[in-house]
Amino acid sequence: MMIDTDNLANLYRESLLDNVIPFWQTNSVDWENGGYFTCLDRQGKVYDTDKFVWLQARQVWMFSMLYNKLGKKQDWLDVALAGAKFLETHGRDAEGNWYFALNRAGVPLVQPYNIFSDCFAAMAFGQLSEATGVEEYGALARKTFENILKRRQNPKGNYAKGFPGTRNLKDFALPMILCNLVLELEHLLDASLVSETIQYGVNEVMEIFYRPDEKVILEAVHMDGTFSDSFEGRLTNPGHGLEAMWFIMDLAERLGNKDLMQKAADITLQLMEYGWDKTHGGIFYFLDIKQKPLQQLEWDQKLWWVHIEALIALSKGYLHTGDERFAQWFDKLHTYTWSHFPDAEFGEWYGYLNRRGEVLLPSKGGKWKGCFHVPRGLFQLWKTMEAIGEKQSKLTVQHK
Amino acid sequence: MMIDTDNLANLYRESLLDNVIPFWQTNSVDWENGGYFTCLDRQGKVYDTDKFVWLQARQVWMFSMLYNKLGKKQDWLDVALAGAKFLETHGRDAEGNWYFALNRAGVPLVQPYNIFSDCFAAMAFGQLSEATGVEEYGALARKTFENILKRRQNPKGNYAKGFPGTRNLKDFALPMILCNLVLELEHLLDASLVSETIQYGVNEVMEIFYRPDEKVILEAVHMDGTFSDSFEGRLTNPGHGLEAMWFIMDLAERLGNKDLMQKAADITLQLMEYGWDKTHGGIFYFLDIKQKPLQQLEWDQKLWWVHIEALIALSKGYLHTGDERFAQWFDKLHTYTWSHFPDAEFGEWYGYLNRRGEVLLPSKGGKWKGCFHVPRGLFQLWKTMEAIGEKQSKLTVQHK
Repeated sequence: MMIDTDNLANLYRESLLDNVIPFWQTNSVDWENGGYFTCLDRQGKVYDTDKFVWLQARQVWMFSMLYNKLGKKQDWLDVALAGAKFLETHGRDAEGNWYFALNRAGVPLVQPYNIFSDCFAAMAFGQLSEATGVEEYGALARKTFENILKRRQNPKGNYAKGFPGTRNLKDFALPMILCNLVLELEHLLDASLVSETIQYGVNEVMEIFYRPDEKVILEAVHMDGTFSDSFEGRLTNPGHGLEAMWFIMDLAERLGNKDLMQKAADITLQLMEYGWDKTHGGIFYFLDIKQKPLQQLEWDQKLWWVHIEALIALSKGYLHTGDERFAQWFDKLHTYTWSHFPDAEFGEWYGYLNRRGEVLLPSKGGKWKGCFHVPRGLFQLWKTMEAIGEKQSKLTVQHK
Repeated sequence: MMIDTDNLANLYRESLLDNVIPFWQTNSVDWENGGYFTCLDRQGKVYDTDKFVWLQARQVWMFSMLYNKLGKKQDWLDVALAGAKFLETHGRDAEGNWYFALNRAGVPLVQPYNIFSDCFAAMAFGQLSEATGVEEYGALARKTFENILKRRQNPKGNYAKGFPGTRNLKDFALPMILCNLVLELEHLLDASLVSETIQYGVNEVMEIFYRPDEKVILEAVHMDGTFSDSFEGRLTNPGHGLEAMWFIMDLAERLGNKDLMQKAADITLQLMEYGWDKTHGGIFYFLDIKQKPLQQLEWDQKLWWVHIEALIALSKGYLHTGDERFAQWFDKLHTYTWSHFPDAEFGEWYGYLNRRGEVLLPSKGGKWKGCFHVPRGLFQLWKTMEAIGEKQSKLTVQHK
């Protein structure tokens, strides 16, 4: 099986530039107050005006990244700046922790209980500092990054509901995101901090949260890395692991570490086998590693981000290993994803399908879905298709 | 349409006494450590040993109530005491707030962030004080009730994530539960506190959270009672409202308040119309009052407690008004419920069905489902069928 890289590169590029980015550019920017509306219905109409900091920051990042990578279009930078200024003015408490949610005008609604607001803010201002050359944005990204590292051992702070000492767990999400964030901020950080953070992130993801016996990645483990036979400890999220695997492949490429690349590629295939719904197709949202009943009532749903992140991991796995199994999985998953998520009539993607692949919520954005996974994924897939295509044509030349 | 009260009374009584109660009595009691296992799989096998205080307390209540209402069976009291002693020893922090979760041995796992742990503990020790005549249990119920009233304005305390002042909301759940709890504890409280609490609860539920224009009950409103056009403010949970309506009917009966009875009956019919899934049958879990997309991914699922609480409300509506529409809805809902929730092979009920009525999780208990809604509901339905039957036979006698 050959991946038809030319056609797919075109498809992803066109979806990104002619469909998804215009959808957000047209519908989401609040030119009056700054920031973005992310609660957009099927047609792109605003149905709620709350501003969730995760999604505000991610959209700043997205438009800054386009500006940095695809050419200096002023209207992209304007969109990024509309969000950045809103966040800069309203986004933080006095200690520099990022709130979780603000109202339309920017007044805080939800306290900074969630460290991922900080992670995405750091990402946003890191890209924006590159786009604008404004040192102040770089300083804000760096300061936020340092604050994340400081809060790392107790990210929820006073909002943690766990009773100290009984079952202290650590979560997969933070080291996983650090693997990506550290490359985003490389131009702003000391080389030693970059390499320490990479070492920490890769070790946590690949040696602690990945379990070679069960061939899955856990969402939470005891502080000492051992398995916790509890609801939290048994929980797996295949899409989360798959997203992490392309972060690790990017790191492995940068480090020139072939063993790490191979291991991330192997885990990608294991997670696809594990997470795939053999009855209805698509990847489950949550599974219990011991196949016990879950607390997550949404466990069997099919989510947009899971599917596009998995496509990225498979495409990069194929690019770096050439293993046919990636091409087969990629083909199967692309077909599922493309026939279920994009909305041919009003653009962008549905976010939430039920197990059968029927639309569960017709909205294009909300509290958790904004201008991020779909456009980032389309960009990654477009560029990876080009890279695979180049590699294939070099091979063809060599074989002649 | 006549409700076949004799057959149904038998069905509910037999289900309660020969199926559901034995299921919990056999499978859930931890005779070694005290307390109950509530994480039971389809067959009743324990799949997790965490002890959630809501469900510990509710099971103490359930077995005490059976003992008080159906005859002094020592083995029912033994089950109640196994949970009560565990809760008394391990359930509270130094200030008398009830934890949310404990591990198998009783060591706290989750802090007392959730005031409903306290509500169910008060219910439990109230019934148990009646069952045993032990004054200490009554005192614990009373003290817990007073603590709930003290915490009423800020039930989540330090664990509240909302930023103070921006959008202060109050929730329907607490006044609703107080409407039921106050009758549970009537034998332990001053008459003035009982009548004040009833007045407060009824007023909040019927005048503040019920919205006559839209004919629904909201889950949250601004502190001043006005509508909040936000995700939280638009949220409705038809089953929650239906459960509240039978609490209110019980109060109306006790107060001899016919207007209140009629209003609760009217709202019951409105909520059935509103919540019923016209495509697949059953009652939706959550709906947005403005039909906007919800944050709850489980919004379209069919939950056990919603359906049995709605059956109780309909049966009491019929008992107190004789209105045919209750009989019609009752028949339709009984048929749906009885053909979807009970597990003919291993007993008890499934808790979670998808929109189509297929089993989403095969377990019989977990973090939120324990020995409570099903047996309490079967008891209520059995007794209400008997009352309707008596009323019907009196009418028949009069008509002769």
